[in-house]
Amino acid sequence: MKFYSKLAKDIIPYTAGEQPKDKKYIKLNTNENAYPPTPQIKEVLRNFEYQDLLLYPDPDGTELREELAKIKKTSFKNIFLSNGSDEVLSMAIAAFFDEDDTIAYPQITYSFYDVYADYYRLKKIKIALKDYQIDINDYLGLDGKGILLANPNAPTGMALKTQEIEELVKNNKDKIVIVDQAYIAFSQGCSSIELIKEYDNLLVVETLSKSHSLAGIRLGYAVGNQNLIDALNRIKNSINSYTVNRLSMAVALVAVRDGDYYSDITAKIVATRERVCDALTNMGLFVLKSSSNFLFIKVKNACQVYKELKNRGILVRYFDKKGVNDFIRVTIGQDKDMDLFLENLKDILA
Amino acid sequence: MKFYSKLAKDIIPYTAGEQPKDKKYIKLNTNENAYPPTPQIKEVLRNFEYQDLLLYPDPDGTELREELAKIKKTSFKNIFLSNGSDEVLSMAIAAFFDEDDTIAYPQITYSFYDVYADYYRLKKIKIALKDYQIDINDYLGLDGKGILLANPNAPTGMALKTQEIEELVKNNKDKIVIVDQAYIAFSQGCSSIELIKEYDNLLVVETLSKSHSLAGIRLGYAVGNQNLIDALNRIKNSINSYTVNRLSMAVALVAVRDGDYYSDITAKIVATRERVCDALTNMGLFVLKSSSNFLFIKVKNACQVYKELKNRGILVRYFDKKGVNDFIRVTIGQDKDMDLFLENLKDILA
Repeated sequence: MKFYSKLAKDIIPYTAGEQPKDKKYIKLNTNENAYPPTPQIKEVLRNFEYQDLLLYPDPDGTELREELAKIKKTSFKNIFLSNGSDEVLSMAIAAFFDEDDTIAYPQITYSFYDVYADYYRLKKIKIALKDYQIDINDYLGLDGKGILLANPNAPTGMALKTQEIEELVKNNKDKIVIVDQAYIAFSQGCSSIELIKEYDNLLVVETLSKSHSLAGIRLGYAVGNQNLIDALNRIKNSINSYTVNRLSMAVALVAVRDGDYYSDITAKIVATRERVCDALTNMGLFVLKSSSNFLFIKVKNACQVYKELKNRGILVRYFDKKGVNDFIRVTIGQDKDMDLFLENLKDILA
Repeated sequence: MKFYSKLAKDIIPYTAGEQPKDKKYIKLNTNENAYPPTPQIKEVLRNFEYQDLLLYPDPDGTELREELAKIKKTSFKNIFLSNGSDEVLSMAIAAFFDEDDTIAYPQITYSFYDVYADYYRLKKIKIALKDYQIDINDYLGLDGKGILLANPNAPTGMALKTQEIEELVKNNKDKIVIVDQAYIAFSQGCSSIELIKEYDNLLVVETLSKSHSLAGIRLGYAVGNQNLIDALNRIKNSINSYTVNRLSMAVALVAVRDGDYYSDITAKIVATRERVCDALTNMGLFVLKSSSNFLFIKVKNACQVYKELKNRGILVRYFDKKGVNDFIRVTIGQDKDMDLFLENLKDILA
């Protein structure tokens, strides 16, 4: 580690889910969408003027922000674009937290939050779940600069209602509240975006990775009061003026316009989720109530089950962490893949 | 600036060159390539399996790194990929410098370096140029953690030879030396990449933006000793596991393979540069010896000349900064555009 900064030496980087290259798996481990993105993308790529790639992209991403603003019923000035929602979250921490500031987030949540807190050298208040769910009463009257929540939460998949988030935001007016809505498309009555008009302390982060089957293009965004969006732009423009490339921008534009297609596949995924959840419950398993595109399933010897499923060509996610190491997290795939998963799980547990 | 971190409040972000949307300019202001990228990209986009966009990209970018390694005569383990070379530079500072560490770089250089130094709260040693050129003797025996150089330098366009960089690296073995080779394709005998085998303190940063006419895809990379590359990956994986999207990766792959096409357009740009440089000199103007795809031209009332060129539909770059505010920086475009530029400049100066 010669020449390394203290940060580079000390940090424990995030470990992403496996992206296997060795063989073809039924891939239920990184919460990608079960269905391909809108077929209109085929035409976009076919007709793309490749010569335009010689030019830098629009650093402001105005056209895409305007389109997102229409859908989110806000103005493009309330939208910040970047290279995936992980990057948006990282920039949000830089924008609103200084070293030694305190950030509060759930004990069990997206494990990247620990990495961000360490990277930016924040103090952490990690709040235990109650029955695997976030209790907003635990987030009132806290010390610190702000709160970071995933809604629906990961890897539990459980969601808070909009009114609960509003309660939390309203009672923390002196704090910045960041709500990471990566899985919001698969929930109902849980989005906080409408609250940004009323509350200047709320930043909502979303991504096209899951909802729009576009993990491959890296497109994340934040929605909030213009003051907060300006802070994000100040950070972005101190790192990389052009975080979103031309191709991803063009693809994202047709995707967000094709609401009908995405309503259809979202409905299919939710139906499959409910069916699989029932089947698992009927097998006598404990499954958390999911508002996302994955299920968190309690199984004996979870690590062994994960390994045996992998041997059989089915990749799910296991977290070797106290409190969740008796669960597997399973992305909702297409029906045929979920049937195979159910069959194999039954067989392994028998 | 309610809720802003001190960083977000204090930082003065980078100001990128104009990317005008109001009208069609002859765009000679952001050093994009004069020619389109390889036409093979048309086929790549036409044949791209759009369904694959539902999956995350390979976070390691192995295939593209292996291809770059072949060309750079090194191993893929010596290559770090990210979302444009600005991001690579930012991550390199995070990887090798702690707050209050000292970094040395030229007084006149890529203006983003000041922003990085401020963003990461470094102490700066800014070293004056001599006759507009970097004198490596000024970089021997310095205090501090490391040195950052653009070679060729911007906005001067002037380059140091490989032996000069070697002299500098060899005599600074206790320091990290970062060489930003964004414009190296347009120089001869100046690349430092071969030196990374011998010197563990050298990191070379490059981009496909200028050399490969691909500013629109955002693809930058660093080449160095594996120890340095590991540090960059530790930083990247603490911010965003997937910085390079699938489409940019696919496009970059065919571009770096098509060396013949790029040798041709590079040769054309260099020929145009020399012709335009001679024409300007014959007009009695002082022009720096360029090893890049732009010219730095001393003109009276530079700001006025910039504005008048813009009025006439020709966009060049003017820097309102002591030491360079009597120059305009002009990207080398295609011959017909440069003829128009020369004509108009003559007319304005008359």
